[in-house]
Amino acid sequence: MMSLVCLSLRLRAAGCHGSRRSVATVVSGNKTASLVRQRLQMEVQEMRSVLSGFRPGLLVLQVLQSVLSINADPAVHGLIVQLPLDSVNPMDPERITNAVSPEKDVDGLSCINAGKLSRGDLKDCFIPCTPNGCMELIRQTGVSVAGKQAVVIGRSKIVGAPMHDLLLWSNATVTTCHSKTLDLPEQVGRADILVVGAGRAEMVRGDWLKEGAVVIDCGINHIPDERKLSGHRVVGDVHFASASQRAGFITPVPGGVGPMTVAMLMENTVQSARHFLLKIQAGG
Amino acid sequence: MMSLVCLSLRLRAAGCHGSRRSVATVVSGNKTASLVRQRLQMEVQEMRSVLSGFRPGLLVLQVLQSVLSINADPAVHGLIVQLPLDSVNPMDPERITNAVSPEKDVDGLSCINAGKLSRGDLKDCFIPCTPNGCMELIRQTGVSVAGKQAVVIGRSKIVGAPMHDLLLWSNATVTTCHSKTLDLPEQVGRADILVVGAGRAEMVRGDWLKEGAVVIDCGINHIPDERKLSGHRVVGDVHFASASQRAGFITPVPGGVGPMTVAMLMENTVQSARHFLLKIQAGG
Repeated sequence: MMSLVCLSLRLRAAGCHGSRRSVATVVSGNKTASLVRQRLQMEVQEMRSVLSGFRPGLLVLQVLQSVLSINADPAVHGLIVQLPLDSVNPMDPERITNAVSPEKDVDGLSCINAGKLSRGDLKDCFIPCTPNGCMELIRQTGVSVAGKQAVVIGRSKIVGAPMHDLLLWSNATVTTCHSKTLDLPEQVGRADILVVGAGRAEMVRGDWLKEGAVVIDCGINHIPDERKLSGHRVVGDVHFASASQRAGFITPVPGGVGPMTVAMLMENTVQSARHFLLKIQAGG
Repeated sequence: MMSLVCLSLRLRAAGCHGSRRSVATVVSGNKTASLVRQRLQMEVQEMRSVLSGFRPGLLVLQVLQSVLSINADPAVHGLIVQLPLDSVNPMDPERITNAVSPEKDVDGLSCINAGKLSRGDLKDCFIPCTPNGCMELIRQTGVSVAGKQAVVIGRSKIVGAPMHDLLLWSNATVTTCHSKTLDLPEQVGRADILVVGAGRAEMVRGDWLKEGAVVIDCGINHIPDERKLSGHRVVGDVHFASASQRAGFITPVPGGVGPMTVAMLMENTVQSARHFLLKIQAGG
């Protein structure tokens, strides 16, 4: 599927302005996510050979339940809090997120896991799913991260901030940009690796990019499109048409970071289940 | 004292090469720390008017004691773990640091406090003393941080990583550099605000700097000096003589960041004691 997309882009570029450079390789999140799922399936089968009938348990908490009792439930290996909480009483989402046991916090959003990640203790924490998926996509390109100039746009808890951490501890020189950054196009123009989690439709234009850059687009934005039955279409934070003429690698939206986020949630849950199983084995 | 140092530098610059630009203002950590101490003294007196005889308690743990019992001791408001631990048995320093109750972790080094700081929850955590002192020194210059290009050299738990966080959540565009950064002089040359915590004597040279930059030097390095009785002298990570010709503001070593670190430890302890006192008042 990836090669098909590449092909159509190459033809279009050649047809439009006989570009001297080839257009970006589109890094498919669907394809990469499917590879991850295959790997996880095998891992779970291996776990079952150790403990018959065992299966990794993930619980999504959206209505009011006792977090503490789920923390103690041995059949649940991952617990994520789906915000906003569907509760009659007003609740502090921060407090609920941090009530999840760090060992089951497969979203990696509790401050204990965030603290470990931000300070470089990556072996000892759950990594938030979206940036983890972005790293997997960057690895797929074959471009090494160490010593590269990485630029992250956004500093949210679920995308920008942990993305900075992952790139930093992969030894990139990392610049974090955000809504108060005054010279965004210049900052972006320095990036060998660019990850965008800004939440603004098609904000990053192709002519901002350094030629050959790896561009990872975490945006999911709905914009009006009267040609669609739904009246809208989904675009990223990067203007794909122009960016793919200049980037070396680029992720599409949809079908890029999105499926990787889901795959990484599975990955973290399986990792948690494996850890749980190892503890049982050590105990028995 | 600050103005005296400035004067002598200005004279030297004029005498040496009649510089067209004035040399950097030296930002004294001694002077700023003394202002902080005066403020804290008044705060503690105010606390005593509420609870006679009350005093903020700080405990430095270096030999093996029970962290948990100190966590529970109402007379201790701050507990710091002095590494390396002076213990016969090998111990995991990470585990001891994280055993300190977050409410008494006045070093701000436990992963809960680090997680909050790194994700922007600055009101709800203790900030590590050295970067907190650096921010105080930056404030002293009157230079606003928001929208500025800040560069941090170093990514340690006690200096570089939390410094990045503080600058980021003060709305600077922040680049973190480290031992794997390939183009350090170029990165430094873009900095409006530069904080150096690299641990390498006089590594940053004056000609790397953007003219007028704010330069905060966290280095404490001993280099041989046969003119000294001790046979060595203390220098920072910045080459002061050349950097002060080009920076707008610069901290000296010694007498810059060092005294601020101590003042901020006092600040955090008083903050913790105040919090404790408020809880007593609310309870009574």
